[in-house]
Amino acid sequence: MGVPVVGVVGGGQLARMMVPAAVELGIEIRVLAEVEGSSARLAATQVGDYRDVDTVMAFAKDVDVVTFDHEHVPQNVLRAMVDAGISVQPGPDALEFAQDKLRMRERLTELGAPVPAWAAVSNAEELQRFIDEHRGVAILKTPRGGYDGRGVRVVRSGEEGADWFQDFDRLLVEELVEFRRELAQLIARRPSGEIRVWPVAETVQRGGVCHEVIAPAPGAGSGANRFAEVATGIAESIAEGLDVTGVLAVEMFETTDSRLLVNELAMRPHNSGHWTIDGSRTSQFEQHLRAVLDLPLGDPAALDAHSVMVNILGGPQEEAITDRFAVAMEHVPDAKLHTYGKSARPGRKVGHVTVTGDDLDEVMYRARTAAGFFDDPDTETDTGTDTDTDTATETSTSTNTEETR
Amino acid sequence: MGVPVVGVVGGGQLARMMVPAAVELGIEIRVLAEVEGSSARLAATQVGDYRDVDTVMAFAKDVDVVTFDHEHVPQNVLRAMVDAGISVQPGPDALEFAQDKLRMRERLTELGAPVPAWAAVSNAEELQRFIDEHRGVAILKTPRGGYDGRGVRVVRSGEEGADWFQDFDRLLVEELVEFRRELAQLIARRPSGEIRVWPVAETVQRGGVCHEVIAPAPGAGSGANRFAEVATGIAESIAEGLDVTGVLAVEMFETTDSRLLVNELAMRPHNSGHWTIDGSRTSQFEQHLRAVLDLPLGDPAALDAHSVMVNILGGPQEEAITDRFAVAMEHVPDAKLHTYGKSARPGRKVGHVTVTGDDLDEVMYRARTAAGFFDDPDTETDTGTDTDTDTATETSTSTNTEETR
Repeated sequence: MGVPVVGVVGGGQLARMMVPAAVELGIEIRVLAEVEGSSARLAATQVGDYRDVDTVMAFAKDVDVVTFDHEHVPQNVLRAMVDAGISVQPGPDALEFAQDKLRMRERLTELGAPVPAWAAVSNAEELQRFIDEHRGVAILKTPRGGYDGRGVRVVRSGEEGADWFQDFDRLLVEELVEFRRELAQLIARRPSGEIRVWPVAETVQRGGVCHEVIAPAPGAGSGANRFAEVATGIAESIAEGLDVTGVLAVEMFETTDSRLLVNELAMRPHNSGHWTIDGSRTSQFEQHLRAVLDLPLGDPAALDAHSVMVNILGGPQEEAITDRFAVAMEHVPDAKLHTYGKSARPGRKVGHVTVTGDDLDEVMYRARTAAGFFDDPDTETDTGTDTDTDTATETSTSTNTEETR
Repeated sequence: MGVPVVGVVGGGQLARMMVPAAVELGIEIRVLAEVEGSSARLAATQVGDYRDVDTVMAFAKDVDVVTFDHEHVPQNVLRAMVDAGISVQPGPDALEFAQDKLRMRERLTELGAPVPAWAAVSNAEELQRFIDEHRGVAILKTPRGGYDGRGVRVVRSGEEGADWFQDFDRLLVEELVEFRRELAQLIARRPSGEIRVWPVAETVQRGGVCHEVIAPAPGAGSGANRFAEVATGIAESIAEGLDVTGVLAVEMFETTDSRLLVNELAMRPHNSGHWTIDGSRTSQFEQHLRAVLDLPLGDPAALDAHSVMVNILGGPQEEAITDRFAVAMEHVPDAKLHTYGKSARPGRKVGHVTVTGDDLDEVMYRARTAAGFFDDPDTETDTGTDTDTDTATETSTSTNTEETR
């Protein structure tokens, strides 16, 4: 085989951030983007609908492997590729668990992974019974199509789910978890089985969207709250049990009674791993490319004692970007700035900043300071719905969180 | 100003390696490549002759700044851009010193920078006189057009320069320097004056081509051979004295009698700085983009105690590249592999490997091991002339070296 060719379905910032890793390694990357001018436009070789079999098959026919910027490619499209002998990583069976929250909960339970109490409910009576058994409150989720606050609601009576039962045979109901903080365990697995694990990270949500990531999660590796090994074990068993290939992010709650419970899965590079671009020997984007090509995985060790990533949400209008660059670079010369080539919109993830170093307080301060220069009062607050596919799945992590933090 | 747009003239691996930095920051990069399928093809928006004024002006007309993959753009083309109000970084006056070795030597001497003994000679008699005054041997160089062994020869009599005097009014003659090793001081300067300096590196040539770089240069920062401060001072005075913007590499000899003498200058990212991609907080490619846009410069601190970069010369035939990836990645999971999307050819720079860490011996061993997997008996030895523009200037560093090492 000559120069490896990776085809990425989806043109969001996750595909964009695979481009530097591909260029540096010397891998060819091609992107099937949803629209012209996507975040990953530099590598876009085709624009089309990822739900259309013919479109995706035409894109996939001469690449070595197909992978994804998001988990929303329909099963019939995925299976058409597999049937045609195309390497699809992760494969349809794994992605099914990322696409259907009920199937995910069922499978994790089979595997013995720790999850919140949950049930599949088919009507208001069953829902009411679950609520009654769980302190009078629960989280109701549609199995599919839920993101960014849609498809998820806090309910205190069976009646509150009535309208959704018209559209779905079964809904997922979960206990409202009381937790100290959220963790994300990032892991990579290649088809031939090798696994590599980054240090577990703490994720901090703001307004239902990932806002900050601290890696490694403070205190996770030592003392009474030694969660690092547990988190790694959970992620390994899920990656193997669900046959996930590429990067997998396992989002977890650290509960107030010191357990880890699996909240959501993302089968692709993930916001909780953006720190690895600057803070790890092997970034999640390089590792994802290596993994989906079934190449040996790189060293995921952290380069510094602490890494903090802060998202730029909303962001400045495009005409102001250079001014923001200048002021941020001037004040924090060690900040690694990343912007995604996306126009500003309230609550939209348009970039991030990472700072690494020995002193966590200092690192946190510098990362927040640098990111703060990109704040914009007009776009910072999420007043609308962002339909970015990437943001969509990522923010689903917050569905079990807002009322308890 | 909105998203900054940088236009790069030349599509070699230096332009290619600017692409990841541009994508990560969120800067738009456009490349004027010499040919289809260049190393920087992903960002190539135009293919054409960089010596043609109309071609370059068409490329330059809607970018924020023009910079370069090499120093060979003719002065009339450079000045046409400046006359049209286009920001050209580095500018024509600075590049003139990189294009004409005699002017460079004259200017460095004016600045008081330490250089080998040299003279401009117009005929065999003047050349003979210089040879007689310098132990019967000297290095003769054509002022322009010399690279990769062309335009440079070791001479022991005035007659040996006779044919070149037919083509050039004046030739540059230099003493054959006896040196312990070669150093390279990488520095970045922005138009408004800010300067940032990376740790001085040791460069090791093989067969006249840069082969390994060790950063920082062992012993340069401490003890009797404390050259780091001297090297920095020399580079700063040159960057300011020649009004260089962007990245400048100052290649120096550390002589057997413990002096530093300036050998060559490169006004662009340079092979001696490839280690900064993985070994420094701010890579030379990111810093070059920031500098030419007159944005504040990033922190050039090393991330680890030692970085070693080993070039992949010649390299495997393209059909074998994935096999080589697999074996190198398997054996050295912490090696950072870089390949340039160029076909194999004897002696050609087709990639490099960087390893960083605390123990120099271990780092060196691992970098050499990883790079070694890409060796190919058919292409390793330089049996021909590589006309890559990037290689061209870089290898001129060896012109004063081969007989003394």
